[in-house]
Amino acid sequence: MNILIITAHPDPTSLTHSLSSVATDQLKRDGHKVRVSDLYAINWKSAVDHDDFPALPASERLKVGPASKQAYSTGSLTEDVVQEQEKLLWADAVIIAFPLWWFSMPAILKGWVERTLSYGFGYGRGEHTDTHWGDRYGEGLMAGKRAMLCVMIGGWEPHYGPRGVNGPVDDILFPMNHGVLYYPGFTVLPSFLVYRSDRLDEAGYNIAAERIRDRMKNLFTAEPIPYRMQNGGDYLIPSMQLRPELNPGITGFAAHLKPTDEETS
Amino acid sequence: MNILIITAHPDPTSLTHSLSSVATDQLKRDGHKVRVSDLYAINWKSAVDHDDFPALPASERLKVGPASKQAYSTGSLTEDVVQEQEKLLWADAVIIAFPLWWFSMPAILKGWVERTLSYGFGYGRGEHTDTHWGDRYGEGLMAGKRAMLCVMIGGWEPHYGPRGVNGPVDDILFPMNHGVLYYPGFTVLPSFLVYRSDRLDEAGYNIAAERIRDRMKNLFTAEPIPYRMQNGGDYLIPSMQLRPELNPGITGFAAHLKPTDEETS
Repeated sequence: MNILIITAHPDPTSLTHSLSSVATDQLKRDGHKVRVSDLYAINWKSAVDHDDFPALPASERLKVGPASKQAYSTGSLTEDVVQEQEKLLWADAVIIAFPLWWFSMPAILKGWVERTLSYGFGYGRGEHTDTHWGDRYGEGLMAGKRAMLCVMIGGWEPHYGPRGVNGPVDDILFPMNHGVLYYPGFTVLPSFLVYRSDRLDEAGYNIAAERIRDRMKNLFTAEPIPYRMQNGGDYLIPSMQLRPELNPGITGFAAHLKPTDEETS
Repeated sequence: MNILIITAHPDPTSLTHSLSSVATDQLKRDGHKVRVSDLYAINWKSAVDHDDFPALPASERLKVGPASKQAYSTGSLTEDVVQEQEKLLWADAVIIAFPLWWFSMPAILKGWVERTLSYGFGYGRGEHTDTHWGDRYGEGLMAGKRAMLCVMIGGWEPHYGPRGVNGPVDDILFPMNHGVLYYPGFTVLPSFLVYRSDRLDEAGYNIAAERIRDRMKNLFTAEPIPYRMQNGGDYLIPSMQLRPELNPGITGFAAHLKPTDEETS
């Protein structure tokens, strides 16, 4: 299979890069093809701006959505973005490795998301009807591909627990797992997490390396996060509310997980 | 009072900028001083990298936390970062205006957070003892200052409701409100939100403008989000779990809000 690994850390000797190398080695050993987008190494342009749309006259107002739609549909996106889109189309699975900075991904990686997942590619796809609200949340161009975050977390695990002061890690990652990956159609795997990532000793590193090797071995067999397909019948359209009989009384991110005992709708 | 407005949109005629101007005008009319950091206009550098630490030898490995600590403590941060830190120290309130892209802030703004809130300035402050776990979450250099997000949201409000498919907007914004603003000490106000921001007609715009004027008039009197001070007695140290008797049985982001009827500990 084909695997794209995206890394976002400025230090090539960082844990992010080191564990990505371990993952790459394991994947190759198992016969997969691996490509890497090392965002710092390729000096990825982070900020969406007018330069991203060379066909848009300099005098014209930049409306990001329409400009992105126009550029994608006419093949006039910039070459760096086209290359990333081609890698995504090539890939059967995507691994995204980064340090958690201020409870989200590094700016350079956010810029990769904003620029690569253009209108027509990552969002703005499909019809809007009474039974179908665009191809998103489980449908889209990335459908059939797997994705997984590998997150280096400086803090302590209990601080990210259900009642920890930082908030639960699953909720902190939900805007990325559900909002960035599931939205364009990826099947999302539980994230690979390393806590106290700045303080790993050799034994801790070896454990983390072994864990990521295992995750790579199971990349195509592991159970994904059981998000609900938007157009699968679980949501009212167009209000996109979860039907009241599903996860009754539950609000928040967790409502969008299908319990294991819930019947398929 | 002194107000810093930070804007992050590549189009100077965007709703983000237009409403920021309305806010600026109202604040000035009320006798406040206003400074603006228009991140696109100043071509803000988004990505943290080795260039941010001129005193760090090029051959030396970049460990971001220690490099940031060293640069802040020795006054060797880059001039653009120093200027933003000075503006924050000057401000009594900070308004951050941006479009919600992929359920978070634009990359350029994330880069502002990562680079401006350096170790020693935005995090890594205070002692760690049995009763005090660093100056954070309600304590820190930004204590006594107010902050408010102004967020332009392309999607529909019900999609961001308690059971809407995107997840509740308060939860989507929690990593920014609690994780980025409350962490270094800001008193955080409820966010100013505009839904379907790409489709506003003139009447809708006028309503939004009036709403933001009202928010500016009440900037220093509005009730903040009732987050819990980390070192105020509500959390066990060092596990940083909310004490079991507070919001019993509640997990997730909402647990960190103090109910109006809860006694101050």
